Amino acid sequence: MENKVKLQQVLPDEIEKRSFEIISQEIGNVKLDPLEEPIIKRVIHTSADFDYLENLVFSPGAAELAMEAVVKGATIVTDTNMAMAGINKKAVEKFGGRVVCFMADEDVRASAKADGTTRAAASMKKAAAIEGPAIFAIGNAPTALAALYEMIAEGTLRPALIIGVPVGFVNVVEAKELIMKTDIPYIVARGRKGGSNVAAAICNAILYQCGGRE
Amino acid sequence: MENKVKLQQVLPDEIEKRSFEIISQEIGNVKLDPLEEPIIKRVIHTSADFDYLENLVFSPGAAELAMEAVVKGATIVTDTNMAMAGINKKAVEKFGGRVVCFMADEDVRASAKADGTTRAAASMKKAAAIEGPAIFAIGNAPTALAALYEMIAEGTLRPALIIGVPVGFVNVVEAKELIMKTDIPYIVARGRKGGSNVAAAICNAILYQCGGRE
Repeated sequence: MENKVKLQQVLPDEIEKRSFEIISQEIGNVKLDPLEEPIIKRVIHTSADFDYLENLVFSPGAAELAMEAVVKGATIVTDTNMAMAGINKKAVEKFGGRVVCFMADEDVRASAKADGTTRAAASMKKAAAIEGPAIFAIGNAPTALAALYEMIAEGTLRPALIIGVPVGFVNVVEAKELIMKTDIPYIVARGRKGGSNVAAAICNAILYQCGGRE
Repeated sequence: MENKVKLQQVLPDEIEKRSFEIISQEIGNVKLDPLEEPIIKRVIHTSADFDYLENLVFSPGAAELAMEAVVKGATIVTDTNMAMAGINKKAVEKFGGRVVCFMADEDVRASAKADGTTRAAASMKKAAAIEGPAIFAIGNAPTALAALYEMIAEGTLRPALIIGVPVGFVNVVEAKELIMKTDIPYIVARGRKGGSNVAAAICNAILYQCGGRE
């Protein structure tokens, strides 16, 4: 076994740039909306899964509306600590925003138990009280999307954007389709795929397009 | 728009069970090692990506050796806060273990700068000083795997297990192949795919096989 490793000598800052070049090459001539393109590419970058070229769907103007919300200091609400951990907090704070996840809160646990629902659904109800624009980034729980749908249908919630990318095999496909029936701007990964990493990647792509990383 | 949502009525505890049943059905007759099977299925559960049925490779006995390390209270070292966030800490603590990620530590930042290397590589060097068995769960940085390889080749590190599942397009494939040349037990996602979510899922699968969730 040799002691020294012969990986390509690429500076850390260059790795992301080169990765995006490779993704662009492999995508080839597919025409993408210029505001959606960096989001789709960052999701492929985070997953190495080109299925997202097909799966990721945007309501009309969603990418632009998302950017408007970010620069107004929107709060980003996640349904997992993992998604929260993956979002670039410095970039969020640059615009006066913050990232919150109420899943582990004691009051959320108690109200989920009292209502016979999931903590994910209860955490969405808690998040509905947030002042100002809010982006809901859901990478895990279809019940969180169902709770959002119900509050939107009741007229008690008007989020700036829903990122609907739970992953899984039970109720996931259906919950995403529900969100696509609302009149709320959305970015949804149709089908089973998604995850907390995908939710975080979409948030970061939007933040970086707004200049959050400069 | 109707107010009430008609998702399948599945209790939260049942969702995971049913998801695994669906995964088993779709895998069909593929023969899996009984100790590797729950790990492969949990990775598919976390990604909805059946490619892992092919991609996920185990050194001989890796799953069993991983379980032995866990019940001895192994420290789990991650290369992202996101992977750390995804690991079931209660399960780790049940065996007297802990999860650490040194990426954001000030001394790691300083030593990376001094050595002209990445924080990921520097954080692995810091982790080499951990007492007792250690499991390295790498979902992001190929440079972390390269640093582990070098320390193993030099004889300064003998981890109990390396989970080598970075995702990406630059140096990722090569870094995983390097780990597979060592004599250290490994679980590797060959190719470009992987991620912090995959690293966390593998850790949780091993923990749950040891009874960490009961």
